[in-house]
Amino acid sequence: MAKNRFFNRNVVSIRDFDRDDFSYLFDVTDKIQTLKSKERGEIAKGLILGYIFYEYSTRTRLSFESAMSSIGGRSLGISDVDSSSIMKGESYADTIKTISLYSDVVLIRHPSDGSSRYACEISQKPVINGGSGSEEHPTQAMLDIYTIFKEKKKIDGLSIGIVGDLKYGRTVYSLIYALSNYNVDIHLVSPAVLRIRSESIYDISHKVNMQQHLELSDDLLQKLDIIYVTRIQRERFPDLQEYKKIQGLYTIDENILKKSKPNVSILHPLPRVDEISPSIDNTVNALYFKQAAYGKELRAALLSILLHENPF
Amino acid sequence: MAKNRFFNRNVVSIRDFDRDDFSYLFDVTDKIQTLKSKERGEIAKGLILGYIFYEYSTRTRLSFESAMSSIGGRSLGISDVDSSSIMKGESYADTIKTISLYSDVVLIRHPSDGSSRYACEISQKPVINGGSGSEEHPTQAMLDIYTIFKEKKKIDGLSIGIVGDLKYGRTVYSLIYALSNYNVDIHLVSPAVLRIRSESIYDISHKVNMQQHLELSDDLLQKLDIIYVTRIQRERFPDLQEYKKIQGLYTIDENILKKSKPNVSILHPLPRVDEISPSIDNTVNALYFKQAAYGKELRAALLSILLHENPF
Amino acid sequence: MAKNRFFNRNVVSIRDFDRDDFSYLFDVTDKIQTLKSKERGEIAKGLILGYIFYEYSTRTRLSFESAMSSIGGRSLGISDVDSSSIMKGESYADTIKTISLYSDVVLIRHPSDGSSRYACEISQKPVINGGSGSEEHPTQAMLDIYTIFKEKKKIDGLSIGIVGDLKYGRTVYSLIYALSNYNVDIHLVSPAVLRIRSESIYDISHKVNMQQHLELSDDLLQKLDIIYVTRIQRERFPDLQEYKKIQGLYTIDENILKKSKPNVSILHPLPRVDEISPSIDNTVNALYFKQAAYGKELRAALLSILLHENPF
Repeated sequence: MAKNRFFNRNVVSIRDFDRDDFSYLFDVTDKIQTLKSKERGEIAKGLILGYIFYEYSTRTRLSFESAMSSIGGRSLGISDVDSSSIMKGESYADTIKTISLYSDVVLIRHPSDGSSRYACEISQKPVINGGSGSEEHPTQAMLDIYTIFKEKKKIDGLSIGIVGDLKYGRTVYSLIYALSNYNVDIHLVSPAVLRIRSESIYDISHKVNMQQHLELSDDLLQKLDIIYVTRIQRERFPDLQEYKKIQGLYTIDENILKKSKPNVSILHPLPRVDEISPSIDNTVNALYFKQAAYGKELRAALLSILLHENPF
Repeated sequence: MAKNRFFNRNVVSIRDFDRDDFSYLFDVTDKIQTLKSKERGEIAKGLILGYIFYEYSTRTRLSFESAMSSIGGRSLGISDVDSSSIMKGESYADTIKTISLYSDVVLIRHPSDGSSRYACEISQKPVINGGSGSEEHPTQAMLDIYTIFKEKKKIDGLSIGIVGDLKYGRTVYSLIYALSNYNVDIHLVSPAVLRIRSESIYDISHKVNMQQHLELSDDLLQKLDIIYVTRIQRERFPDLQEYKKIQGLYTIDENILKKSKPNVSILHPLPRVDEISPSIDNTVNALYFKQAAYGKELRAALLSILLHENPF
Repeated sequence: MAKNRFFNRNVVSIRDFDRDDFSYLFDVTDKIQTLKSKERGEIAKGLILGYIFYEYSTRTRLSFESAMSSIGGRSLGISDVDSSSIMKGESYADTIKTISLYSDVVLIRHPSDGSSRYACEISQKPVINGGSGSEEHPTQAMLDIYTIFKEKKKIDGLSIGIVGDLKYGRTVYSLIYALSNYNVDIHLVSPAVLRIRSESIYDISHKVNMQQHLELSDDLLQKLDIIYVTRIQRERFPDLQEYKKIQGLYTIDENILKKSKPNVSILHPLPRVDEISPSIDNTVNALYFKQAAYGKELRAALLSILLHENPF
């Protein structure tokens, strides 16, 4: 394999990675899926993923634990800082420091921007950002574009719709930054109150073609190769009336599929509530469970190349 | 060893298994106990047991985790769905689907009948029912009859008393179904309000000799080879007076042992409260802790043959 | 290596171990740090650490889990007995018994004195006391003196200050007992209300030179080779005024370092709150994070020699 571009590196922001990094990571992810379980189970033997979740995220935690287990390593840590009373009064720095002493790579989810970046200064082991603040979830973006790449055999030239809550969904920002490394058309579809914070992506606005829409119009559907759906949370709306107006407006169902390109791919970071009708789960277009499965594989690959210069 | 009768199979109901299945499983359980820990620790290397507990069950979870660990695999999942806020709003189907993507075999405990059967339709990996609804706990029944078999060298021809709460204890129903594969006499001993729901076992009533009793009479004690005790919960009684009347009526102690066959075996799915006096724990008759230990071994065997066509 | 002095032994009280035991344990700890992760990861393959925490202790749990994982074993158990509703009504003895059936070594933290000693009578596997009652935390004391030994290349002849809450800190008592095996001067520094309970250490008072102080005076600082700092909890004081009077009196900072021996070593069992200023974290004197890291290594060594007669 090519030179390891990830060994001992921090995975804090998707902005720190470029097209060549992604390409290398995708190759490793392909490679790791060809290994038998016993072979895979040797890679991280005796190594430990330490995690701290300052926000709940069952899904991200399980995906990483599963990835680490599949390469023979173990995971340990704190999944609920609230109930971990012994940590009370201890500084964030001391907690990070301690976890880093007990493990070989550190995973952090934290509500504040910059929390992972700061952790890198303290931890003696590589840090992975498992979601921070309002804009960063780099491994989610990596698995999103890996999923697109696996399905379409390319990313350049695609038309990608991102639909739903674009204002508060941190995965959306990371995804757009990841996509800015490619030559794509991005269509942002959301109600007015959930429009993307354009100041947060201004530095890439010259690099990508981006258009905003209020609706998934028939014209737009005819263009899209990918529809990336995110959850719209009721709590984001000033009143229930406002929410009810838009509820269902962006729901992906058979009707939407009929008006779309035949090979359109539907992605979703999960969990979903009503944004995608279960009635399309078994269509070839539904990619969201495959995407979750790729999450395990890509994270297993990522952990392998962070931990070992030559994992294979 | 004989052909694997369990590879890639779902373990949803004890009714899906027959005498030959049990016989094969017992052989594998015997076999796995002869392996050295390092040899055992190779079987499930790189493989993952994913679990979801919609009801608490520390004991079942630990027994399975311990079993999986002893064969070199890992366990991960959700042991408390209530506090797992991220799952809120997600459908049961999506949660099962996701866990199945992260693991190689899926363990579910759920309060509803049919929950595990439904999960099989969704999961891409074998499903194990870790207790569902009011009647199914198949792996408990398997370890129960394995314990009997190990102690008595046979099951056919035994007289087996099942004592306590026969109405609400799900282990009781699974056990009776398991025993219906053998030629045994079953004696059901319970207060009237906790009698077995006979409609739940009507389909095997022609296959087994079953008698109901209100007391552990001296006559009955002289017949029993096995006394299987279950917990009587205070909450099941309309008022405390009713409970106090029967409390202690079925407690197994030295006095009961004196009136029993010398080699009677006492079993209990644990945890116990007052049903068995700790004063008999060190007698040869007390089998309940051995039974718990066999639980680990039998589950390790079961996981091995679900996961590998040729585990050894 | 020398004959294994720990195989299959219970680690209940620091008083059960002598200088030769410590010396052997330190050698194994040195040895284990020279192993490559894959080599280490073979030691406890297929073996299980079962734990029960009747008091929260994220740090002790993670340190042991990390140690066990690094030698290839797994950990499982109950970290929060309160929320483990299924255990309700079950006796302490039954819970210990059950965990011991599922594991190869048992770790217990419990608020009562004697809880671990009692567990040894029930458990069929070696028991490790992870902190009990007001005076015992033997593995903490072992790692404390290992840290001193690694830094100073000896323990005999050192002047050791123990500072802070000496009354309620269980680590302090275990540390003093461990040190009583060596020829050291111990200086106990605390406010009057937090003085050590002298009746608890009367049996070693003839063996060690011990002096009590109310302040970290300049004279005293000139003598100390080691300053072992413990947390002073506000809740220990009858009123806030009392607490405020002493708050900061024992805080270790640059000012204290200036007045100390140049090579003084600062230890702390962590977590710290205000007792040590983070401004000295990067000095050569700050040993507390190294100490935490040694905790993982020493516990990995301890588990290895409890579990295997010849682990290497």
